Amino acid sequence: MRNVTKDNITDVFMGYMSKDMNPRMREVMGSLVQHLHDFARETKLTHDEWRQGIAFLEGCAAVETEDRHEFVLTSDVLGLSSLVDMLHSRNDATSSSVLGPFHVSGAPPLAYGGDMKRHYGGPILLAEGTIRDIDGNPIPGAVIDIWQTAPNGLYASQDDEQDTFSFHGLMTVGDDGRYAFTTVKPVEYTVPSDGPVGDILRACGRHPWRPSHLHYIVTAPGYRSLVTEIFPDDDPYLDQDTVFGVRDDLVMTYVEKPASAFPEGMELSGQVNDPFLHVEFDVKLAPE
Amino acid sequence: MRNVTKDNITDVFMGYMSKDMNPRMREVMGSLVQHLHDFARETKLTHDEWRQGIAFLEGCAAVETEDRHEFVLTSDVLGLSSLVDMLHSRNDATSSSVLGPFHVSGAPPLAYGGDMKRHYGGPILLAEGTIRDIDGNPIPGAVIDIWQTAPNGLYASQDDEQDTFSFHGLMTVGDDGRYAFTTVKPVEYTVPSDGPVGDILRACGRHPWRPSHLHYIVTAPGYRSLVTEIFPDDDPYLDQDTVFGVRDDLVMTYVEKPASAFPEGMELSGQVNDPFLHVEFDVKLAPE
Ligand SMILES: [Fe+2]
Ligand SMILES: [Fe+2]
Repeated sequence: MRNVTKDNITDVFMGYMSKDMNPRMREVMGSLVQHLHDFARETKLTHDEWRQGIAFLEGCAAVETEDRHEFVLTSDVLGLSSLVDMLHSRNDATSSSVLGPFHVSGAPPLAYGGDMKRHYGGPILLAEGTIRDIDGNPIPGAVIDIWQTAPNGLYASQDDEQDTFSFHGLMTVGDDGRYAFTTVKPVEYTVPSDGPVGDILRACGRHPWRPSHLHYIVTAPGYRSLVTEIFPDDDPYLDQDTVFGVRDDLVMTYVEKPASAFPEGMELSGQVNDPFLHVEFDVKLAPE
Repeated sequence: MRNVTKDNITDVFMGYMSKDMNPRMREVMGSLVQHLHDFARETKLTHDEWRQGIAFLEGCAAVETEDRHEFVLTSDVLGLSSLVDMLHSRNDATSSSVLGPFHVSGAPPLAYGGDMKRHYGGPILLAEGTIRDIDGNPIPGAVIDIWQTAPNGLYASQDDEQDTFSFHGLMTVGDDGRYAFTTVKPVEYTVPSDGPVGDILRACGRHPWRPSHLHYIVTAPGYRSLVTEIFPDDDPYLDQDTVFGVRDDLVMTYVEKPASAFPEGMELSGQVNDPFLHVEFDVKLAPE
């Protein structure tokens, strides 16, 4: 098309794509560019604003490292990461939620009833539940990859004071599908806000806080892997998670119980002298 | 919003933006996120595709340098750069076209009738014209920043064999608004296709070529600066410029003339022994 105009440029773009290209790529690129162009036309995007957009991407590039994922964080705070999750969630299984940038592979095994709290202060949380299929049957041998922040609000990968796998554990459930472990109740924390994403949050009058959450990845042969989180129902940031991770079925009541109610057969059994928190969180996995 | 869903997440995002934020920022971010979410919902974007998108951005970050602007190039080949140009073009002035990534500031002055070809081979092109206002009056003292590729298809900034300002010049017009210079006819060239943008072009079955063009930035006090290009009307890539830069009023006939027709008063006068090409390109600037 010789005479490209603001009204025909989207069609010209579509015409440039080969009929022989991958049909799904054609669908995704076509939709992406249609929306990109409509965005520019609707807002009558100026050269200055375009330059700010380019500077934002270049700013993300400048802070991106192996441990700092500013493009992922951008997707998180714009709600794209959560939306992609929800587009592929099933109503009859436990909701998925954002993976976040702090998962590390290779966590050490954590036996049934094991403790992740160790010497750290803060309220003891006993988390337990059953991994089931969508018909309610336990899934023997399902594996739960668990991780959370230390009481200082930092993940091990962000914090030189912690071991590599501090507050990370890998629990394999038995024939009854049950898991149980103790930890310290996770604290609310802020996503990194000293980079371009922080600038966007401030420009929008937004805070960088996430409510308290425990991350799980639950896997079992023959089932869809589930990346999820659980939240206590009394968290002040539940209604305003900056990465849009909260789902109704992931919000749980953490019940305070007397020390005498602490069960037998746990790593900390006999060592709990104060009231502790208890949460029961069952997980339903969809078939593959 | 406690229970974020794929249907309400866009509204939740809008609710996170402060009423006190800059209203234009609110409009631009709101439209951007509405379109980003609609894109994901319409395509039912998968986790794998999302990861490919993040990997594309991280790949751009990895090749980005002071001389390599992969994010700008992405905007160019998706048509966004041209669209932003056209959204702010005026019908009664010369069309603007893409700046591209190869402009360098500080080009040396080029006198009226001066030559940019120097020792390079290839057909001599005599380009001339008048810089006018929208009523047709010459604009004395208008300045034209001119740049183009060498016959090898490379800009000075891409090519160790060329001086910094090879094929770059800054011409100030006289009271009659006239400019004239000689050069070698620019060749078609490819945008850099050895990075993530090249991968996208190949995946879409697209080529990386641009038609032959001469870049101008025309400035004069009291007028809107014009970033533009001119194209010869016989170029094979006119209908498929990979960065969408071609506009009807920027396509010119380059007329072949006998050596005897070469005018007096030019730097090359008396030295032209072969037929040369001639193009007359008048520019109209809009008031500020
Ligand atoms: Fe987290
Ligand atoms: Fe160019």
